[in-house]
Amino acid sequence: MEKLFFKDFAIGKKFDFGVTSFTEDEIIAFAKLFDPLDFHIDREAAKKSYFRALIASGPHCFNFVHRTQWIPRFKDTVIAGMEVNHWKFIKPVYANMNVHSSATILDIKPNPENTFASVTWLYEFKNDAGELVQTLEMVILHKIS
Amino acid sequence: MEKLFFKDFAIGKKFDFGVTSFTEDEIIAFAKLFDPLDFHIDREAAKKSYFRALIASGPHCFNFVHRTQWIPRFKDTVIAGMEVNHWKFIKPVYANMNVHSSATILDIKPNPENTFASVTWLYEFKNDAGELVQTLEMVILHKIS
Repeated sequence: MEKLFFKDFAIGKKFDFGVTSFTEDEIIAFAKLFDPLDFHIDREAAKKSYFRALIASGPHCFNFVHRTQWIPRFKDTVIAGMEVNHWKFIKPVYANMNVHSSATILDIKPNPENTFASVTWLYEFKNDAGELVQTLEMVILHKIS
Repeated sequence: MEKLFFKDFAIGKKFDFGVTSFTEDEIIAFAKLFDPLDFHIDREAAKKSYFRALIASGPHCFNFVHRTQWIPRFKDTVIAGMEVNHWKFIKPVYANMNVHSSATILDIKPNPENTFASVTWLYEFKNDAGELVQTLEMVILHKIS
């Protein structure tokens, strides 16, 4: 995967991270580590839940896409993570459902010395119908050079 | 751990989740799964980073405390997670540093039928000096009965 640097950044630029889906086993394995609610880890209990079937833990999509798509591209530019906002769990993510992911640069604020910049990223996760299932904004401090 | 229910909720009520710390190996193992940046997974690279030593991945504190403290108490009341906001990574969490955790109920909005409620929780993570190192607000839909 091609590494990208600050020179590749621009407000409004969108990076397409392709399509992701999780099997029931992957949903259960993730949730057991970090979010062991019945409707994430127990097929039978999930059938009786509000969602009527197993759904992925809220953070699963972001954590997976961030690790496999964002970090390989941008890791060498990161000084620190600053903030996460507006992480909205809009629709459930069921097993084997396609989730289309992207990250768009919403804002870039360089420091006065122009050595680093605070960058606001918007993650969007959509279903096959193009409807948002989840969004998240994160503010990351990136090296400029 | 005692399970708690909606009857135990009140605006302003604070739940103390005690003290947590992570070893270098725990920091590395967590970050390899979800946040494999050099200053989370590579001791030598971390020495040359802005932080001058290995630091825990941003989500590590929350994910650990949520799984081990919040979920065991509140899991049977959860309908769905709705939103995460103002997750601020204020100070770095180094290896073997004490992190004092709590969750406070900021708001409770029941539905008109009084069958469920949208509850806003404030997580606070502080160091031994009582300074905030991280905060997070989450909105959870809880069953009322």
